[in-house]
Amino acid sequence: MSRSDATPDAATAGREMFALIEELFPVCRSITGAGFRDTLHRIQREIDLDVHEVPTGTRVFDWTVPREWNIRDAWVKGPDGELVVDFRASNLHVVSYSVPVRRTLSLEELRPHLHSLPDRPDWIPYRTSYYEDTWGFCLTHRTLESLPDGEYEVLIDATLEAGHLTYGECFLPGEGGGDVLISCHSCHPSLANDNLSGISLAVALARSLTERKRRRSYRILFIPGTIGSITWLARNEAAAERVRHGLVLSCVGDAGRLTYKRSRRGDAVVDRAAAHVLRHRGVDHEILDFVPYGYDERQYCSPGFDLPVGCLMRTPNGRFPEYHTSADDLGFVRPEHLADSFRAAWEILQVLEHNATYESTNPKCEPQLGRRGLYRRTGGHASLPGYEMALLWVLNLSDGRHDLLAIADRAGLPFSVVREAAEELAEHDLLEARV
Amino acid sequence: MSRSDATPDAATAGREMFALIEELFPVCRSITGAGFRDTLHRIQREIDLDVHEVPTGTRVFDWTVPREWNIRDAWVKGPDGELVVDFRASNLHVVSYSVPVRRTLSLEELRPHLHSLPDRPDWIPYRTSYYEDTWGFCLTHRTLESLPDGEYEVLIDATLEAGHLTYGECFLPGEGGGDVLISCHSCHPSLANDNLSGISLAVALARSLTERKRRRSYRILFIPGTIGSITWLARNEAAAERVRHGLVLSCVGDAGRLTYKRSRRGDAVVDRAAAHVLRHRGVDHEILDFVPYGYDERQYCSPGFDLPVGCLMRTPNGRFPEYHTSADDLGFVRPEHLADSFRAAWEILQVLEHNATYESTNPKCEPQLGRRGLYRRTGGHASLPGYEMALLWVLNLSDGRHDLLAIADRAGLPFSVVREAAEELAEHDLLEARV
Amino acid sequence: MSRSDATPDAATAGREMFALIEELFPVCRSITGAGFRDTLHRIQREIDLDVHEVPTGTRVFDWTVPREWNIRDAWVKGPDGELVVDFRASNLHVVSYSVPVRRTLSLEELRPHLHSLPDRPDWIPYRTSYYEDTWGFCLTHRTLESLPDGEYEVLIDATLEAGHLTYGECFLPGEGGGDVLISCHSCHPSLANDNLSGISLAVALARSLTERKRRRSYRILFIPGTIGSITWLARNEAAAERVRHGLVLSCVGDAGRLTYKRSRRGDAVVDRAAAHVLRHRGVDHEILDFVPYGYDERQYCSPGFDLPVGCLMRTPNGRFPEYHTSADDLGFVRPEHLADSFRAAWEILQVLEHNATYESTNPKCEPQLGRRGLYRRTGGHASLPGYEMALLWVLNLSDGRHDLLAIADRAGLPFSVVREAAEELAEHDLLEARV
Repeated sequence: MSRSDATPDAATAGREMFALIEELFPVCRSITGAGFRDTLHRIQREIDLDVHEVPTGTRVFDWTVPREWNIRDAWVKGPDGELVVDFRASNLHVVSYSVPVRRTLSLEELRPHLHSLPDRPDWIPYRTSYYEDTWGFCLTHRTLESLPDGEYEVLIDATLEAGHLTYGECFLPGEGGGDVLISCHSCHPSLANDNLSGISLAVALARSLTERKRRRSYRILFIPGTIGSITWLARNEAAAERVRHGLVLSCVGDAGRLTYKRSRRGDAVVDRAAAHVLRHRGVDHEILDFVPYGYDERQYCSPGFDLPVGCLMRTPNGRFPEYHTSADDLGFVRPEHLADSFRAAWEILQVLEHNATYESTNPKCEPQLGRRGLYRRTGGHASLPGYEMALLWVLNLSDGRHDLLAIADRAGLPFSVVREAAEELAEHDLLEARV
Repeated sequence: MSRSDATPDAATAGREMFALIEELFPVCRSITGAGFRDTLHRIQREIDLDVHEVPTGTRVFDWTVPREWNIRDAWVKGPDGELVVDFRASNLHVVSYSVPVRRTLSLEELRPHLHSLPDRPDWIPYRTSYYEDTWGFCLTHRTLESLPDGEYEVLIDATLEAGHLTYGECFLPGEGGGDVLISCHSCHPSLANDNLSGISLAVALARSLTERKRRRSYRILFIPGTIGSITWLARNEAAAERVRHGLVLSCVGDAGRLTYKRSRRGDAVVDRAAAHVLRHRGVDHEILDFVPYGYDERQYCSPGFDLPVGCLMRTPNGRFPEYHTSADDLGFVRPEHLADSFRAAWEILQVLEHNATYESTNPKCEPQLGRRGLYRRTGGHASLPGYEMALLWVLNLSDGRHDLLAIADRAGLPFSVVREAAEELAEHDLLEARV
Repeated sequence: MSRSDATPDAATAGREMFALIEELFPVCRSITGAGFRDTLHRIQREIDLDVHEVPTGTRVFDWTVPREWNIRDAWVKGPDGELVVDFRASNLHVVSYSVPVRRTLSLEELRPHLHSLPDRPDWIPYRTSYYEDTWGFCLTHRTLESLPDGEYEVLIDATLEAGHLTYGECFLPGEGGGDVLISCHSCHPSLANDNLSGISLAVALARSLTERKRRRSYRILFIPGTIGSITWLARNEAAAERVRHGLVLSCVGDAGRLTYKRSRRGDAVVDRAAAHVLRHRGVDHEILDFVPYGYDERQYCSPGFDLPVGCLMRTPNGRFPEYHTSADDLGFVRPEHLADSFRAAWEILQVLEHNATYESTNPKCEPQLGRRGLYRRTGGHASLPGYEMALLWVLNLSDGRHDLLAIADRAGLPFSVVREAAEELAEHDLLEARV
């Protein structure tokens, strides 16, 4: 193999991913604003990223790009003048996209603006209010319960004004044959698994892809959830049509087993590739059917696009108690889990990269492998080595209707073995790639 | 919802069904004759029923409408002159369609004309001989065993003469979009579950449908088994072509679990609707594949028609010991089982009535539900309420290729929830019905 | 039924098959040469067999017909002048297709030419070297271990010269409707199960088919493995196109359960027929998916032919320890296992012979079976006899799209019952065969 396609070192990638998460954790991201923009600038130090700015008010299908939100400070002061809630301690304390406010009000008036988790009294929830003008604070239930009656002073020093929605796009051109879309929402504040882990995996994949020859082109998007994918799709319908495979990345740093959620199509190549890779890893995993809820696959898989985009996760959104709380912190994600996710994602991309359909140049009977040195010389043994079985499978099923992934699945062999067999047969002119 | 489509009260329906069964139980029905005609006249007091008379000798496909059978009396007198078998005690005592007879004969000569159930010595079997000229009596095995040798006098005071085959048809026109066929054989004498229960369910459904607005048209048939459906099909080929869904009703009053037998097609809308309704009821039930035996689905599903007609039952024909015996009496059926069958049948009809295929008017990305008040305002929660999931499923799958039933099945949600979501989305012009 | 299609006696067939195996066991067969030719001449005493000779050097697709190999004697003499390996004791002792050799050499030099089975120290392995010029001996590991150092004299008195590849073909013409191919490799020396059992089964089937009227034509091939089927296919492409069903026979004499390996298509009639027959026998059996390894189905199922050819075995190749060793001897196969394989193969051929697709002449509603004497006269019984169910199934599914085998499978009835029902219905003009 002449291509520079050495497998990247996953353990190193996992450590680098974790380091990036640590750096980005304190930033107060939202769907627009300085936090999101700063995050993209940090990513630009890792990979070649175009940053796009879309003005407030731009129509994107049924939606409108919202005002830009920026926050400087926020707190709640108790009757005794002490801070009871402080944005500087955790950016989760403010409901994302809160309108600016400076008021004094009674606890009773304040209460509807306070969000807590009675079942998890020490955790701060993460709440948003993107599309309705309101404000609020999130705090631990323990704190909420301890608040005395009296007058409270609240400050949210934020602006919600015409500006831009920002997103980042890294395009890595390949030889052709359709694009691979990788997408991660990047709009969450101090939450590690959801979705700094996804961001860090997208960065690591982009970096490894950058360093290698590519058959496919890759488009890696760092976008605000929902409105970001809608904006990208609205502005890039032609590019969307070139997407042949796609993965949304999210929640890839926790200790849970790997989970792949199928695209709406259910049997796209990426669906078969992910199932193949996860099955051959030999460890517990889960394959979920598509549901129109979750991350930006909701938009990519809307009926007017129906792109073949699945979602790679460890524990899915909403299925771990720490989800969307202050407990989704730097202790909840680990370099080794990030490394494991990187390894699986890379293997899936390798299948997408190298999957191909061939036709046998000798479809009538087997070609004589022995005289080409492709078959052992003494006959009569009870079994055949796996690689020779791969050669026979590839020859038998290369009728233009089975891609290598289908051959691997029917043969029960890993894709890498089948691919190697096919490439060797092609070198001996026993296969021709079908364009 | 402006339509008067309140769900009928099943408990009341069950009590009324049982009362009708009690009234009709004593009548000696057969495939033709006064008993069948009297039964239809009783049903006419409940619903708007057309009674059709087809002359003896009419060719109906491969068959010929038989002579009309009417019976006044029948008995067997023993050697001592006492009645040992008496039609007035049970109309099951006479083999249905027996030719008239008045003879004296030995027990040995009589024996081949006597039918009993050795395994159930206290039950009288139900036997017929429609298409061969013979006569016979049915009696308990205990009585049979006790008959002394000697001379027996037998009387069957019946007529088998040119007349008519009678059937009843209730047509309830709807807005269009294909007819729903409901069919029950009504030719059995004093047997409660098979098939007075089916008759009573057909009557109850017809009455509830009569009182409501209808999208579909409904055609409810009360016919003699086999020859009745053949006769109806032979005379109504154009109407048969308009049948989009159908249900044969039988054995719906016993204590067994509900059973649905699929149409020959196996995947007709009625098959999917019945499976959906039975699954979502959350109680034990059974779905059977089509077999060309059972009730009039045999004719509706013959290859030249292949109508999408399934069969709703509780315990199927031949699977309960009381089947076709005197033990299938008024104690074997209960108002609460009838009510339960009514409820299930009504739910199936509701699916057939309201199932539709839509296309999203915003197929590219999700429409913004929040600004239409269709989505909760604060984001970040771990899960989505079922109704909002239904909205997303309907939007995602309304591509003109999925009907609401398919969406409900894929979403794992009850049809009623999906239907409500679709109707609300249509009100907001987010869906358009596909004609 | 007027045809002379009495079922042959399997027990007798089993005994005759075993007797033939005993006779052919000592012959030293290889892919060419006198042993193969002698075997065909012995078979010609049983059936009408054409023997074909194809010259060395003939191109057959990607292959070339090899030189002809004939061996007269072979041995290894130890340092003391005694024979330590003697071809006359077992023809497995010589690697098949060894080039002639007469040398004296040290044990160290001899070692690479000696093959044994360390795990089975008392068995001689079977090894071949068809397509590389080398020589070798096979011996028990116990003998190998006991060889003292010193000078050894080796002799292989063989010729490897231009000649012919020989194969036998028995063609039994039928009324039409496509050919059935039966193929067995016949190139193994003293090995009983692989493949004298396959040869003996092919002979027994050919003899029974010869004696009977046939709808289909049958072509029974006795060929050297791989190169034989490639040669036949290369010379008979037109005949290959007429093959509608096929069976490769091998390893049918051991005590294991019956195994059927599907054709590459997986759902060919022969695949459904074999599965049907094995399932209805009510004893343990196995159905395997196609893999491009095994016997000559590899060639018949190559993508350029993709013939519907499966493989009937008991324990498959490579799955029994005796495979390709001296332990696959006359004690390893039994007349009763051969008889059982014959019975199953015959039943499969009967399905292929009699399977047909009909159309009902009365597709609208059931025809009246009673007046044709095809239905019992008294009605009301709880269940229907299997034969009457078969009549109803055949009528219901004879729409031109279901063959009798599909009807039998859907009805859960044996093919023979469904076939009998169809033939009786056809006699009553209720079915018409679809050409």
